[in-house]
Amino acid sequence: MHVVVNAAMSADGKLSTRRREQIEISGTRDFDRVDELRAESDAVMVGVGTVLADDPSLTLDDPERQRAREDRGEPANPARVVADSQVRTPPDARVLDEAALTYLLVSQAALTDFVTQMEDVGATVIVAGEDRVDLVTALAKLEGDGIDQLMVEGGGELIFSLFEEGLVDELSVFVGSTVIGGRDAPTLADGEGFVEEFPALSLDGVERVDDGVLLSWTVTDAA
Amino acid sequence: MHVVVNAAMSADGKLSTRRREQIEISGTRDFDRVDELRAESDAVMVGVGTVLADDPSLTLDDPERQRAREDRGEPANPARVVADSQVRTPPDARVLDEAALTYLLVSQAALTDFVTQMEDVGATVIVAGEDRVDLVTALAKLEGDGIDQLMVEGGGELIFSLFEEGLVDELSVFVGSTVIGGRDAPTLADGEGFVEEFPALSLDGVERVDDGVLLSWTVTDAA
Repeated sequence: MHVVVNAAMSADGKLSTRRREQIEISGTRDFDRVDELRAESDAVMVGVGTVLADDPSLTLDDPERQRAREDRGEPANPARVVADSQVRTPPDARVLDEAALTYLLVSQAALTDFVTQMEDVGATVIVAGEDRVDLVTALAKLEGDGIDQLMVEGGGELIFSLFEEGLVDELSVFVGSTVIGGRDAPTLADGEGFVEEFPALSLDGVERVDDGVLLSWTVTDAA
Repeated sequence: MHVVVNAAMSADGKLSTRRREQIEISGTRDFDRVDELRAESDAVMVGVGTVLADDPSLTLDDPERQRAREDRGEPANPARVVADSQVRTPPDARVLDEAALTYLLVSQAALTDFVTQMEDVGATVIVAGEDRVDLVTALAKLEGDGIDQLMVEGGGELIFSLFEEGLVDELSVFVGSTVIGGRDAPTLADGEGFVEEFPALSLDGVERVDDGVLLSWTVTDAA
């Protein structure tokens, strides 16, 4: 499986304000690039925090990209994957609508009622890990379901966990021309943080896009 | 006064680990650029958190730059400025050595004993603000002392406060090719964070330096 993390952050590394409110960091050209990246992916993944904060649909904006996928014999939209250890995804969340398949990655700590409820609304539930989702096992199961190209859109807790498990192959970051600030605002990589060994990245691309810059790295060494 | 904020951060916006331990984010070319920026400045400013965590000297590395300054009738090193509301700078901190003048910006909450102690070791103490340093007043006093070009090297609390007060003219950020992570790790701009109005920046420069990228912005609108 090839895992690409893609996110937009402010010049100070924030994904949103301390209130978890997203602000428009990038612009139309970057939105289009993200839509293309989604179209090329078998699945688009977020953490439950992002579902709760933004209620994204994670589907394609451009109907032509949907048609092109269908012409290739693929579903119109990539599958959606939510890492949600304890099943906090609301049953009426947009990621659970009928526009695409949805996988919910949960831990064994997830209450059976919640799991049943998610299956009732059509989600495929993958159980892996005791208290938290075991991402290595869960992603291997997704790969067994044919998901070879996985795009991760955040948030910072999920992104850090993926780096921690050595699962990230590529990182693309749009750095916008503003400062959000806030010691409690979500950043590109939150979690516990590394203290001794750090992932090594190799800078592949530096490109001005909209009024910011798109930085692309390959992960050369896990932490 | 012209205020330039300059810092090196990881790809996820961190200045150091959650333990406040700096890791080498940039490389020799960027260190040289920072030394040159210091040489062109009348003073180099940090917050007391940076003094406590890193004990920097903030002086020039390159003796030729020191000689060039002296040839222009300036002191060998730019002055040093520490924002230190309650005087937590240790009397044996490197910023208080005799290599350069040092200003300590304190609030009225600073204990007189501490202030006297700092003056005894040669620092110039500027009192502004009740509980926290009033940066607008303090920087105006520095300007009155002939400091026209001020370089700010961090940390994230001071940088946020300067943005909050609309005092930043330029922002230069070296983005390194690693991920530090950590929801409690210091970022480029910490503090409370903005929630409604955000500083607007204009991206002036994008340059690959060492194995990272140097991004330079002009602040076009304060928050």
